[in-house]
Formats: sequence, structure tokens, C-alpha cells
Amino acid sequence: MTRVSPTAPPAQPALLCALAGHRPSRPPVWFMRQAGRSLPEYRRVREGIAMLDACVRPDLVAEITCQPVRRHDVDAAIFFSDIMVPLKLAGVDVDIRPGIGPVLAQPPRTAADVRALTTLAPDGLGVIEDAARACIAELGDPTDPEATPLIAFAGAPFTLAAYVVEGRGTRDHLAARTLMHADPEAWDALMTWAGDLAIAFIRAQIRGGATVAQLFDSWAGSLSRADYARYCLPYSARVFSALAADGVPTIHFGTGTGPFLDLLATAGPTCVGVDYRLGLDEAIDRLRAIGRPSPLVVQGNIDPALLSCPTPVLRAHARAVVEAGMGADGHIVNLGHGVPPSTDPDCLSDLVAYIHSLRPGKD
Amino acid sequence: MTRVSPTAPPAQPALLCALAGHRPSRPPVWFMRQAGRSLPEYRRVREGIAMLDACVRPDLVAEITCQPVRRHDVDAAIFFSDIMVPLKLAGVDVDIRPGIGPVLAQPPRTAADVRALTTLAPDGLGVIEDAARACIAELGDPTDPEATPLIAFAGAPFTLAAYVVEGRGTRDHLAARTLMHADPEAWDALMTWAGDLAIAFIRAQIRGGATVAQLFDSWAGSLSRADYARYCLPYSARVFSALAADGVPTIHFGTGTGPFLDLLATAGPTCVGVDYRLGLDEAIDRLRAIGRPSPLVVQGNIDPALLSCPTPVLRAHARAVVEAGMGADGHIVNLGHGVPPSTDPDCLSDLVAYIHSLRPGKD
Repeated sequence: MTRVSPTAPPAQPALLCALAGHRPSRPPVWFMRQAGRSLPEYRRVREGIAMLDACVRPDLVAEITCQPVRRHDVDAAIFFSDIMVPLKLAGVDVDIRPGIGPVLAQPPRTAADVRALTTLAPDGLGVIEDAARACIAELGDPTDPEATPLIAFAGAPFTLAAYVVEGRGTRDHLAARTLMHADPEAWDALMTWAGDLAIAFIRAQIRGGATVAQLFDSWAGSLSRADYARYCLPYSARVFSALAADGVPTIHFGTGTGPFLDLLATAGPTCVGVDYRLGLDEAIDRLRAIGRPSPLVVQGNIDPALLSCPTPVLRAHARAVVEAGMGADGHIVNLGHGVPPSTDPDCLSDLVAYIHSLRPGKD
Repeated sequence: MTRVSPTAPPAQPALLCALAGHRPSRPPVWFMRQAGRSLPEYRRVREGIAMLDACVRPDLVAEITCQPVRRHDVDAAIFFSDIMVPLKLAGVDVDIRPGIGPVLAQPPRTAADVRALTTLAPDGLGVIEDAARACIAELGDPTDPEATPLIAFAGAPFTLAAYVVEGRGTRDHLAARTLMHADPEAWDALMTWAGDLAIAFIRAQIRGGATVAQLFDSWAGSLSRADYARYCLPYSARVFSALAADGVPTIHFGTGTGPFLDLLATAGPTCVGVDYRLGLDEAIDRLRAIGRPSPLVVQGNIDPALLSCPTPVLRAHARAVVEAGMGADGHIVNLGHGVPPSTDPDCLSDLVAYIHSLRPGKD
């Protein structure tokens, strides 16, 4: 059975072609966290500027977003930001501390605290729109098939809610997982609010020119399948449903979510991102079995640990991932988690060139 | 089909009865990390004493090991120690820093470093044996069916190796996962050595009177199924094979290992510990399908996040776990991860009494 689309895809960037379920002339590739600490030019421009300050400076966001595109020849830019930015714009007192991550000054302690929080709406989204527009100025007009697409970015409701309830990142997200069982009503209010923030944040990026959106559920892997299905999936599905109305293709990624990858697909994205822990061939088989997404489009899943291996080891792995991706209708090559800060940037550039050289599809 | 053993089990502690695949008169229950920071009496005796110093003081180890038995009426004591103790006894310069965890002064950076490390053998295991013996003095003679069994404790080879290679705990264990692919020979030496440490550490506890052993693979959840099968399973299996020769029943637990629970069983333990992320009924179905362990004995898997929920919510969940466990031949009730330090100790005592009141089996 051939998975190659019978009709030639329209002239469009490789990323969008793959998202439409076609095989572009070269495998599209980008890397989660490609903009950031692995790049010396990033560390240079961020020097002395706090993370959340950097995220509301359109010039700086555009510079950082475009750095990996210039350096690596990747097929997409991902809007440089932080999961906490929409909370900050909504007036939540949050800071990103080096070596710790987001820290909330006053995490909600009671159901009343949660309810007060959920009345806050994001303000100043114009800055985000301006930043996306500044990215597009360098990446090229979205209607130009030679332009590099800009992917909008937001944290999924559970990951946002987990940070809010805990006040910071934790290993097991205990307080958030307690709240969903202890007070489902407060949980519902919190998750609905977090979903609204994600939608508003992504829409600002779309207004500025982003043509794809990815929802990151960094912490969903701490959940059982049953808890994800009941307490998280409906809220992520609501986000995808809203974005479908905007007409942009969407990508859904969650770390360690292999055990319920089918539920990530059920949330309604155009494409499912696959964590490195799950074989891409198995992921595709499971999604094919439920018929979602349709067409079957996946993203992933080179193991970031292999980036520090000798080149032949990394290339053999990358080749196997690209070959496994042939089992889907569309495949966006990516890592199965973010770029580690210690990664040699030259290794990423070489990897992009190698993947492009594989050309498994045809125009 | 009934799972209840047709012959009455011999008079023995409920824990050992369940490990033999029988149903004792009351469901045996203990909690991973029951000895430790959740108990005020623990915090009192540890005051001013560094973790690794506490672990080599037989009187203190026995006191801490027995505290939760006195307080909660649990059906087992778990030897109080730290995964790093056998490394410390082997001369590795390691410290446990509050809020960080284990930190190695000189993590190996080259294959030669790894090889030098693996020549180190643990010294001073007599202290561990003495500490176990001091526990037994309070818990009762292992031949007495009224005694509380002592469970020996060690970290699994992968978790030990991950700490060693990284020099500290990390989220993704990247350096360890890189090493297994980049230099399989150095990895083999490291994992064989780590397994030897675990065997020696557990055997010292058995000499002191422990009658069960649990191997903890705290970090295995960062692995893909393929990597676990190839680079970890053989080394854990070697530990279980050695312990089988000692004639003690064994328990194998790994955090986030639901996707390859069958492989944990294949390593050869008497009982498989189930993470809270995986439904206990599904875990039992999967193990039944591969016929291992035989008899089918499971441990787990109350979600620690539920410990802070209102009592009716926690009890309904605990009851469901006990009922699901009826599908196995033997079931040891436990959490599906360790006791959070913030847990109210009274909640744990109440939970033990509630679980004992369920009495799903009969003598």
C-alpha cells in the first residue's frame, strides 16, 4: 500500500505540504527549542535581559525566532516565547528564574483564589502580534511558497494549570493532580481559563502572520490515561476546536504521552507530535487504527540524547525516523523532545542537511 | 474464574503470603518512602545529620526504618537507605544535597573514567548488615509469622548509572542515554558494575534479616521500550537472577514504566510494582497475557496525589485499587510512587486501617 498522495501537492512550503498529508520534495525539519540556549548568538542577545522581558520585545523576539532559521536552514520558525507569557500578560505575578524556571509569587491556595485568578484576561497581546509581524518581515510573506512558515506557540491548559497550582515546575505535579480530584469545579474553571489564555495567545501570533500553531503539553506525561481523558482532554480539544475555526493547521505535542497518544489525536489537531520514548512506527500504527488525524500527519521523533553521539550513530537513527515516517501520510521531522542547551549547534545544522539529503518523497 | 488459591496458605506474614500468590486474611499494605520526611519523628532524629551519614549508623537506620511500622501498622518495613549508599561504600565521592539530591564530585567524563570507576568494590557492607539486624531486633524474628518483614532496598542498575554519568539527578538522563548508544562497551561495564553493587547491597541486608528485596528503577521512565530492552533489562535481570539464588522473593518497581511493564516482569522478579499512571486492572491483564510473573503478583498503585484529597475521594480510589488487585494471584497494596514529603501522616494511618478493613481475602 502506498502512502504517497496520488495528486501533486500545490506549491507551498514543505511544512505546510506535510501538514496537508502530502510528501514535499524534501522532508521538512525543525527542532523544538531550536531558538534558545544552544545558540551562542542567542546567549549574546539575551545577555542581561530577563526571559519574560525578552518575550515582550518584538525586535528581540524576531531576532531570536529567526536565528535558527538563518543558521540551520530549518523548514519552520517557532515563535520565541515562554509558556508563562500569557499569564504574565493577564497580570499574574510570575518570573522565570535561571535554573528553576517559572515561579509564581502567589500560587492560588484555595478554590476562591482559583476563581479570582480566572477572572484575569490577557492584556497587551498587541506586543505579541507585533513580534510575530516582525518575524514575518524576515521569514517572508506567508503567501510566498518560498517563505519559511512561522509556527505559533502556546502551552496546553494542563501544563499552564500545573504551573499555576504548584507555583513552579515540579516532577509529579502533585498539587494540580490533587486539585482535579478534590475540587473538579475549581479545576474546570482553571482549565477553561488556561485554554482561553492559550487561544488568545495563539490568535495574536496568527494575526501577526503565523500560519501553523503548536500546543505544548510539557507536563501531561505525569497523568494516567483516565485522568488525562477526563480532566485534560476536553480543555485541549476546546483549544483545537477554536483554532480550527481560524483555519490554521495545528500540532499537538506532549512529553511522555506515548501511553495516550490516541487521546492527543482525539483532541483534534492536524498533526500529532511523538515523544522520543515511543517508536514512530508504533505511533503511526496506533493512530492509523483510530483513523485520526486524517490525513495521518505526525511530527518527531529523533531522540535528543543521540545528538551527542558520533555522527554515524545519529545519522542511522535519523534515517530510521525518516523511514518510519513514510508510514504516515505526512511527516514533519523533529526531535522527540526539545534541543538540550548543551547541544553543539553545528551538529543540528549537519543533521538538517542530512535529513534534506534523504529526499524520501517526490514532487 | 477464581483467582483464590485452592489450598490454605501456610501461617506467614500477609506480605509473604501475597508474594507467594495467595490471599492473606487482610490485604498487606506498605508505602514506598514510608520512612522519611513525611514523619515528624523522622525529621527530629535526622536533625543535623547528613543523609549519607545517617545511612551508615545502624541505630539510626533501625529507628527510622521502624518509625512507620509503629505509627501506621503497615505490613512491611523498608530498609531506610539511599540509592547512593553502595556507591559511597565503594569510595565514590558522592553527597546528598538538600533540595537537589545526590551530587557526585567527579562524574566520569571519558570511557577511561568509566572503566576506572568500575574497578571499585563496596567496602564496609558490615554496617548495612548490622543496620538490618538492628531493624530485625524490633520487627521480630523472620521465622515468626507475627513479625513484620523487612524489605531490602537497592537502586536498579540504570538509575545508579544515570546518577553516576550525570553526576546528579536530571529530568531526561541525557548523558546516560547518550553513553549507551555512543559507547555500548563502556555502558556494559558501567551497568554490570552497578548491578554488582545492587546485589552486594541487597545481600548485606538479607544477611541482616531482610526476607524480601525491592529493586527501584526511579529513572527508567525516561527510556524508550527499545532502549530499555537492549541497554537495561539484561542488567536488571542479572540482579534478579542472583537474588533468586538467595531464595528471597523480589519486587521490581520503576517510575513511569507503564509502557514496558511486561519487560519489568521479564527481568524475573516475584512481583511487579505498578506506577500510578497505569490502571492496575490493565497492568494485570498485560502481565496475565505474558504469563509473568507466575504466580501473578503485583504491588501498587494508589495515586499519591489522592492522599491530599478529601477522605471519601481517597477511600473510593483505594477501594478501587484493592478490587482491581483481586484480578491478580497476589496483591500488595502500595502507592504508585513514593509518599510525598508534604503528606499528613494521620492520613496514611487512616488509609492503612481502611485498607485492612476491606479484607477481600480469607484464610
